[in-house]
Amino acid sequence: MPLAQPTLEAKATAVLAARQPKSFVTAREPFVDIDLAGIPGDRHYGLLRKADSRQRIYPRGVLIANRRQLSVVSEEDCALIAAELGIAEVLPEWLGANLLIAGCPSLTLLPPGARLVFPSGAGLIGEGENQPCKAPGEQIALAVGQPELARRFTRAARKLRGIVCSVECAGRIACGDTVRIYLP
Amino acid sequence: MPLAQPTLEAKATAVLAARQPKSFVTAREPFVDIDLAGIPGDRHYGLLRKADSRQRIYPRGVLIANRRQLSVVSEEDCALIAAELGIAEVLPEWLGANLLIAGCPSLTLLPPGARLVFPSGAGLIGEGENQPCKAPGEQIALAVGQPELARRFTRAARKLRGIVCSVECAGRIACGDTVRIYLP
Repeated sequence: MPLAQPTLEAKATAVLAARQPKSFVTAREPFVDIDLAGIPGDRHYGLLRKADSRQRIYPRGVLIANRRQLSVVSEEDCALIAAELGIAEVLPEWLGANLLIAGCPSLTLLPPGARLVFPSGAGLIGEGENQPCKAPGEQIALAVGQPELARRFTRAARKLRGIVCSVECAGRIACGDTVRIYLP
Repeated sequence: MPLAQPTLEAKATAVLAARQPKSFVTAREPFVDIDLAGIPGDRHYGLLRKADSRQRIYPRGVLIANRRQLSVVSEEDCALIAAELGIAEVLPEWLGANLLIAGCPSLTLLPPGARLVFPSGAGLIGEGENQPCKAPGEQIALAVGQPELARRFTRAARKLRGIVCSVECAGRIACGDTVRIYLP
């Protein structure tokens, strides 16, 4: 049986990882090889994580399945955040994103259960909107030298800050990849 | 910080597992202790499973994350299937369900990303509708002695056959539990 047709196709324009233990900021790499726990060596790698204040369903600190293994942002959403903040650009590094894609406006609105599949066969499951927190705003403020942006980021990035994903199928994600996106 | 308020509360009225290797039919147990791979000893237990014809995103047989660890049906949905088939009841055993709940009409419509949380702290992530296949229809036909029901089940059960879930937090699920349900 042939594979299903994706709802849309986008392009991976940057692949990034956070390999420095003290910072959430990511750096570009030509590709990453993901396994069922995420990007080995990345800050968010793991099958389990501790429940935090985002996830008020469980007491803080309880070990739960890690569904925030990777985060994905779109060039279109980042451009809208930049426009709202009155700056030239918002880089995926500053958001701690692992993947930047182009050709998927409203990426942040992709519902949980959406699939992102790569030419290698690697696949991600969208787990819903990445709720904006303060740290990326502070990073943007630092990067562009405008301290007042720190407090404006959270509001400016609502519904634009991309999605978190977990890994469904191991494989390689490379800069330049076509990304097939399937709605649930 | 207090835990979030659930969207609704339901009641677990049966807990079941499929422990016979040759059958998907489940049997009632007073409780099950789930871990991150599902119900140990159950037919669908595992962190990984092979992609099948349901999941036409990946080539058949490729190992992917198992998001079909447990299946959940509601008394309300089962009653509607029974009415459509003209029989007195549809038992969760016949559907291979691991959990039967009461007080959640339209359970099958719960979107991917919904959470079901139990008094022990155990938690499930809803992964969307369980697409009806032929086997439960054959089981129902056998159980009630009406062979013609086998081919009618798939249509009668659309949007009523419950959801599949994966485990977010390990713990016990017991018959009689209150189930807190959170929408994404």
